[in-house]
Amino acid sequence: MRKYANKSRLASSLHKSAVNTLVGLTVLGCGILSMQFQSNGKNWRVLGLNHIAIATNDVTKGSDLFRDVFHMKTSETKPQTEHGVNTVFVDANNTKVELLDPIGGPKSPIWAYLQKNTNGGIHHICLDVDDIYAAIDDLKSHGIRLLSDSPKTGAHGKDVIFLHPKDCNGVLIELQQK
Amino acid sequence: MRKYANKSRLASSLHKSAVNTLVGLTVLGCGILSMQFQSNGKNWRVLGLNHIAIATNDVTKGSDLFRDVFHMKTSETKPQTEHGVNTVFVDANNTKVELLDPIGGPKSPIWAYLQKNTNGGIHHICLDVDDIYAAIDDLKSHGIRLLSDSPKTGAHGKDVIFLHPKDCNGVLIELQQK
Repeated sequence: MRKYANKSRLASSLHKSAVNTLVGLTVLGCGILSMQFQSNGKNWRVLGLNHIAIATNDVTKGSDLFRDVFHMKTSETKPQTEHGVNTVFVDANNTKVELLDPIGGPKSPIWAYLQKNTNGGIHHICLDVDDIYAAIDDLKSHGIRLLSDSPKTGAHGKDVIFLHPKDCNGVLIELQQK
Repeated sequence: MRKYANKSRLASSLHKSAVNTLVGLTVLGCGILSMQFQSNGKNWRVLGLNHIAIATNDVTKGSDLFRDVFHMKTSETKPQTEHGVNTVFVDANNTKVELLDPIGGPKSPIWAYLQKNTNGGIHHICLDVDDIYAAIDDLKSHGIRLLSDSPKTGAHGKDVIFLHPKDCNGVLIELQQK
């Protein structure tokens, strides 16, 4: 897991402070100084939808629908014991569907969801971002609650953080560093 | 609304029957006949995720999150009275988020969902397909229940049909003709 307040984080923050104040200082051909300022809090971007995560009781059975009925490409089942889920990925061309089933019973992060939604359903969506640390600072400044203090290493080996669904139209949103 | 068993539909079916039987008959340079057969039920494809639809109590407030906090491009609010919803679209680069709020009280198709999910949440996902009529035939042959007998004209002016969530891992899936 990457430590939130590590050296690279501090360096990134210092750099961003400078960037936020004055992002460009250019001497034009006519000799007039051109200065481009960038407002605080907009120094990160959503790059796209990485995946939709569907919680199921059985990913193998769940993936049959996508492979055999929808004729979509599906991955092998991959146990991700450290994350408490089995995963299958479905290629939707412009994005992915991630099927999940629980490992470890009540300890699995999708266990409670499946107790409430016994047929399964959409558990969360994941958005790629270009700078997860800038996003965290910005989201905090807007009062968006995060489900952890700092990013964790997700199922794809990248930094991820989850946002509180009550602050996001009832949707559990995962941000992932691209 | 497009009539399911109209002329173009019949023409399409006849053409597809032929296609399913023998899709290619080629005389190769060496004089050997090459025949390519395509199995029935695979003559349609999912082209991508068109959108994720999020039901909210207020699309204007809901879109604030995406525009002001996530810095994503959002459309104007568009009342779609005939569909019982207001819509706002959010550009996610590789796909769209469609925000919905109800028009017409209990008659709105998202009313019951919002009664159960008072903070809002993901109502459905929409997949683009290349041939919605071929998809319908194929899905029926696999025992997937549809929420209407034939496609209807959706909010985008294209043919759409919804699949029963209990046959789709608990997820309400809309298919849309590309």
